[in-house]
Amino acid sequence: MTTNHRPGHLNLNAFLMSSGHHEASWRLPQSGPDATGHDIAHLRRLAQIAERGRFDSIFFADGPGLQGDVGRRPSGTLDPLIVLTAIAAATERIGLVATASTTYNSPYNLARRFASIDHVSAGRAGWNVVTTAGPDIARNFGLDAQPAHAERYARAAEFLEVAFKLWDSWEDDAVVADKAAGIWADSAKIHPPEHVGRYFSVAGALNVPRSPQGRPLIVQAGSSQDGKDLAARYAEAVFTAHQTLGDAQEFYRDLKARTVAAGRDADGVRILPGIVPVIGSTEAEARAQERELDELILPQYAQRQLARTLRLAPEDLPLDRELPADLPDEDEIEGAKSRYTLVVRLARRERLTVRELIGRLGGGRGHRTFAGTPEQVADTLQEWYDAGAADGFNIMPAALPSGLEQFTEHVLPVLRERGLFRTEYEGTTLREHYGLARPANRYATAEQVGA
Amino acid sequence: MTTNHRPGHLNLNAFLMSSGHHEASWRLPQSGPDATGHDIAHLRRLAQIAERGRFDSIFFADGPGLQGDVGRRPSGTLDPLIVLTAIAAATERIGLVATASTTYNSPYNLARRFASIDHVSAGRAGWNVVTTAGPDIARNFGLDAQPAHAERYARAAEFLEVAFKLWDSWEDDAVVADKAAGIWADSAKIHPPEHVGRYFSVAGALNVPRSPQGRPLIVQAGSSQDGKDLAARYAEAVFTAHQTLGDAQEFYRDLKARTVAAGRDADGVRILPGIVPVIGSTEAEARAQERELDELILPQYAQRQLARTLRLAPEDLPLDRELPADLPDEDEIEGAKSRYTLVVRLARRERLTVRELIGRLGGGRGHRTFAGTPEQVADTLQEWYDAGAADGFNIMPAALPSGLEQFTEHVLPVLRERGLFRTEYEGTTLREHYGLARPANRYATAEQVGA
Repeated sequence: MTTNHRPGHLNLNAFLMSSGHHEASWRLPQSGPDATGHDIAHLRRLAQIAERGRFDSIFFADGPGLQGDVGRRPSGTLDPLIVLTAIAAATERIGLVATASTTYNSPYNLARRFASIDHVSAGRAGWNVVTTAGPDIARNFGLDAQPAHAERYARAAEFLEVAFKLWDSWEDDAVVADKAAGIWADSAKIHPPEHVGRYFSVAGALNVPRSPQGRPLIVQAGSSQDGKDLAARYAEAVFTAHQTLGDAQEFYRDLKARTVAAGRDADGVRILPGIVPVIGSTEAEARAQERELDELILPQYAQRQLARTLRLAPEDLPLDRELPADLPDEDEIEGAKSRYTLVVRLARRERLTVRELIGRLGGGRGHRTFAGTPEQVADTLQEWYDAGAADGFNIMPAALPSGLEQFTEHVLPVLRERGLFRTEYEGTTLREHYGLARPANRYATAEQVGA
Repeated sequence: MTTNHRPGHLNLNAFLMSSGHHEASWRLPQSGPDATGHDIAHLRRLAQIAERGRFDSIFFADGPGLQGDVGRRPSGTLDPLIVLTAIAAATERIGLVATASTTYNSPYNLARRFASIDHVSAGRAGWNVVTTAGPDIARNFGLDAQPAHAERYARAAEFLEVAFKLWDSWEDDAVVADKAAGIWADSAKIHPPEHVGRYFSVAGALNVPRSPQGRPLIVQAGSSQDGKDLAARYAEAVFTAHQTLGDAQEFYRDLKARTVAAGRDADGVRILPGIVPVIGSTEAEARAQERELDELILPQYAQRQLARTLRLAPEDLPLDRELPADLPDEDEIEGAKSRYTLVVRLARRERLTVRELIGRLGGGRGHRTFAGTPEQVADTLQEWYDAGAADGFNIMPAALPSGLEQFTEHVLPVLRERGLFRTEYEGTTLREHYGLARPANRYATAEQVGA
C-alpha cells in the first residue's frame, strides 16, 4: 500500500484557528488576548512559523455566519481570503488554502478572487470547496432554510465546472502587448464560457488573466457519499477526520478507487487525515497538558454544542450517560453528515458517556487527538502513512502558537531524520509542494500543451 | 464659499489604473509590460509613491466583468479588495478605497470583507459603492439584462442599511476575554440585525468584531439624480467628473444642500472632482506630452467605445462630424447616466467632431484633462478649491507610474508652499485623513459615546 508515496513527500498542512483547535485553549495561561481569528498579526505569525517548518500549506476553515456560542470561545474571523492575501505578503513559499462556500457565493466573483490570490501569491492559492451546512447561515443570505444536502452538492459540482471554465477563459499566451500595432491581447485566445446550466448562467470571460497555477489547488473536506463523489471528480487534496487506522485506511482505499473510477490518476488526490497532537517531552507531560485543556472545558457549553450536532435538546444528553440509543441515520441529516456519523460512531465504539465524549470532541471536534512525545507523534504519523491511510496529515494544534511551535521544533526533525519530510521547499507553487502538475488550459492546442 | 475648507486639509485621492488613465498610455515607450491591473508589484509600487506623497487615499475602480475591447488596452484586473489587502501590507498610513457592487454582491459577504480589510489595515478601508451598469456584467450573474437604474439604486440603499447594521452588530466592547469565568464575549453586546426588507433578509450578526473605523469610509461616484440622493444620505467622499468650474460649483452646491437636507452636516461629505493632469516643465512640454498620447489612440477602437457609451452603431459616428443631433435623453439611459450626459454636453458645448471628442475622452473618460506646468496645475486646483467647487481632488494620472511621480515630486511641493496640503499624516485612519469622526455604534449607550 505504499506505492502511492514518494519518499520525502509526506504532505503536511497546518490548520490554523484562533487560539487553537481545543475549544478551551484560549483559557490557558499562555494564551494571549490576540489569539483570535481577527488579529492579523497573530495569524501572520502562525503562518510564518509553519513556513519556517516547510509545511506544504496553511489552511483556514470558514463559514459566513457567527455560529455556536459566541460568548464562550474566540469567535468572529476575518474573511479568510483577505487573511490569505495579507499572509501572502509576509511569506514566500508556503501554500495558502481557505474555505469558501459554493452555496453562498457566485462563481464569477469567487473564481476571480481565487485567481487574484494566485496572482498575488505567485501561485500559492488553494480553495477548500464547501457547501456550507446550517440553517443559521442560510438566514444570512435571504433563505428560510438551508438547501437540501444533495441540492447543495449538485450546485457545488456545477459551480466548479463554471469556475474551471472561467479559469481557462484566458489562454496562457493571450496577452501579446504589441505596442506598435496597438494590440494588447489576442482576443481569439480569450474564451467566454457562455455557460447556461441548472444553477448558473455565466456568459463572459473572467476579467483576470490565467493565474500562475492555472487554477487554485482544489481541496475538499466533506466525507459524506456526495462529498466523496465531489472529491473524486475534482479534489487535489482532501482533509478528512478518522479516529482509527482502520477507518482511515478504508476511506483512503475508497477515495482513491473513486478517483480512478472518475478517470483520474490515484496520485492526483492527496489524502490528509487530521490529527490534534498534544506534545510533551515525556508521555506523562503530554497527558498532563491534555488534562489541563480538558479541565478548562465548560461542560454545559459543550453539551449544548454536542446537542446541536446531534439535532437534540441539551436535556436529552445527561452528562454521565451514553448517547440515546435511537438517533437518526446519517441519511436523515441535512448538513455536516460525515461529522454527525463520526461523532456517533466514536461514542458507540468506545461506549463513552456524554462527558467523556465532550472531552474527546473538545480537542478536535471529531478529529483524532494524540498526546505523546515527539517520537511517538512521528511514529503514529509514519504508521498511518506506511499503512496506506494517508498521503500526509492535516496538523491541528490544540493550542496556538505553542502547539505549532512544538510540532515544528520537535516532531519535524524526527520526520526528517526518517526521510519522511522535506528540509527545503523544492518548488515555488502550492501545486509543486503537493507534487501536482499545472493543469493545461482546455483551449490550448496540442503543441502548446506539449511545449 | 470657502468656509467648508480647513487649511491644510485639501484632500487628494490617487485614482490608480494599470498604465494610466489615458487609454493609449500603455503604448508609450516608457510603459513597461508590467503596467497592468493584474501585476501586484506594479500596483504596490504606485501605492507606495502615493503614500510618499501623503495622499489621503488610493482608489481602484472595478466592474465584475471584462468590458470594452480587451485586445486594445490592458484589461483584466485583480479583485480590488485582494489588491487593497496586498497593498495594506506594503504601506502604513494611506487610505485604501475600492469599488464594489451592490447589485452583484450579498451584503453579508461584502460587509464582512470590508470590515476585514479595515482590521487588516488598522483602519484604512474605504468602499466606493456602485450599482454597476451594463448588460454584459448582468450576464455574468445569471441575469438576461441589467436591473433598471432606479431598481439598482433602491437595492443599493437597502444594501447600505443592512451593511451598517452588520458593522454595528458587535459593540466596541463586546469582547471581554474573561479566562477565569470562561466568558470570551458579552453576548448582550452582539446584535443580530434580523433584517427583513424588499431586497434582503439578513438574520445574524457579522462574524467579525467591529473594525477600527467602525465601518469603512463610504464613497460614491454616480452623479445621476439617484446617485446624488444616495450620496447625500450615505457618502463621506464623492468622486465626480466636471469639465468646467461652473458645472463643478453647481454640483458642489447641490450635493452639499442635499446632504444637509438629508439631516447630515455639509462637512460630512468631501467632494473630489477628477482631474487628469499632464505635467511638463514648460507648458509646451506638457502639451507635447498630451499630443504624444493622443496620437497613440487608434480612432476606430475609440469610435467603437464612444458608440457603446452613446448606444449607437459606430457607423452613426463619422470621425470628422459632430455628434448626431437627435440623441436620447439621460432619462432613457439605463446605466452610466451621468457619464452619458457628461459626454454629450462636452461635445455640444465645444462643438467637437467625433475625432476631437475621442481625443478629449481618451485622456480621462469624461474627466477633465489639464496640461501644464506644476504651478499651472496647482493654480487650477487652488482655483477650484477656493471657488467652492471642490474639497479636494481625484488625481488621475494619464500615464503610470510617471504621471503620479511627477505630480508627487513637482505639484505637491507647490501646494504645500501655499499651505494647501499636508506635509505629514496627522492621523492613522482614512477617516482621520479626511477629517471625519469615527461613527458611534447605534447600540452604544450615551455614556459610551461620550467617553
